[in-house]
Amino acid sequence: MESKRVAVVLLSGGMDSAVVLAIANSQGFACEAISFDYGQRHRFELESARRIAGMLGTVGHTVLPIDMRAIGGSALTDDIDVPKNRTGIGESIPVTYVPARNTLFLSYALALAEVKGAWDIFIGVNALDYSGYPDCRPEYIEAFGKMANLATKASIEQGIEFKVHSPLSEMRKADIVRKGVELGVNFALTHSCYDPDGEGRSCGRCDACLLRLKGFVDAGFVDPRAYMD
Amino acid sequence: MESKRVAVVLLSGGMDSAVVLAIANSQGFACEAISFDYGQRHRFELESARRIAGMLGTVGHTVLPIDMRAIGGSALTDDIDVPKNRTGIGESIPVTYVPARNTLFLSYALALAEVKGAWDIFIGVNALDYSGYPDCRPEYIEAFGKMANLATKASIEQGIEFKVHSPLSEMRKADIVRKGVELGVNFALTHSCYDPDGEGRSCGRCDACLLRLKGFVDAGFVDPRAYMD
Repeated sequence: MESKRVAVVLLSGGMDSAVVLAIANSQGFACEAISFDYGQRHRFELESARRIAGMLGTVGHTVLPIDMRAIGGSALTDDIDVPKNRTGIGESIPVTYVPARNTLFLSYALALAEVKGAWDIFIGVNALDYSGYPDCRPEYIEAFGKMANLATKASIEQGIEFKVHSPLSEMRKADIVRKGVELGVNFALTHSCYDPDGEGRSCGRCDACLLRLKGFVDAGFVDPRAYMD
Repeated sequence: MESKRVAVVLLSGGMDSAVVLAIANSQGFACEAISFDYGQRHRFELESARRIAGMLGTVGHTVLPIDMRAIGGSALTDDIDVPKNRTGIGESIPVTYVPARNTLFLSYALALAEVKGAWDIFIGVNALDYSGYPDCRPEYIEAFGKMANLATKASIEQGIEFKVHSPLSEMRKADIVRKGVELGVNFALTHSCYDPDGEGRSCGRCDACLLRLKGFVDAGFVDPRAYMD
């Protein structure tokens, strides 16, 4: 029996990365999930990541603490208000931007990939219905991949080519919802909100909630997530 | 009075990064040092980094804990013996290689640079008298820079060009020693050894010690560092 190829999948606890894990599984990869405890305002994301890993199935799930508060510069890690009911999402880069976040996440994923013998890394970035973060764009992902192939022992000694897959890159949020439904993702377990209440209910008004809700409406599904009144 | 440009300098506590900090200072940069507590076998490196920052002068020094033990795969973070008295240093990649280490270090430096308004990052990699790590080569550093200029809000919104400086890239270890002496680096404060004893004395036999000692001999100076008998 041929053993499955291993892939490292960045799993945030949000809906996009849940669909990416389902896609990687459906492509026959044995998935090593990796999540980060980076001083988010709340822990619901990480709890969601654990549940999603359990629901969809992984061969391992590494949760790494990373200290982004020590660096600062974001509404997601500092005491800056998360903007609500924004119009023009994606037209400029909002205060929820975290400096070099995906670069850090992908760097850890690369390290884990090399140790696990995985040459495929999956990330749920999206450059259509997104907040406008620069490190979600295809040209960024491509540049990271080029750098990765010069960075590691595996690439130099074994000629391994790391590939960073971003299967949602060119998908609209509604397509992501449809794909998730098709692959059996239980969206009730996914957490998107930047500013949930104490019970983990979503605010419905931050960028992440607005993009998510529009995606469900456009796809013709009801979001099973709990929202504040 | 024109204010100085800020640079982020990766400071390990070893001799190379100490010389790099001295070079960045001599070029007129106000330096923000960054060091990592990454589960090294010993803490002497970090103590050295603090002393070097104090000796040479910085505007700030961030020490970040990063959990590389959770990822594993190296003699520097796992319970694998550090090789001694190796011949052929630089011809193959040794077990002291840490997966994606410089990629992680540079990613954190990039995040800090963006927050501090620094567009210059200094790293003490060397591709001549080195252990053979892939992420020390000029082509790797160049690829990281390209990726960095697609990754950040500063690069997109303000057209900032991050530059990764590796002033030691093409220097022999002896030239690094001479440069440090010229710029007033007290090498007694720098720690290179992978496997020091309980009092911080260097082993004199690991790759790092062998390269360092040869550098001092070739430069015609005596290494002021304490070695085991």
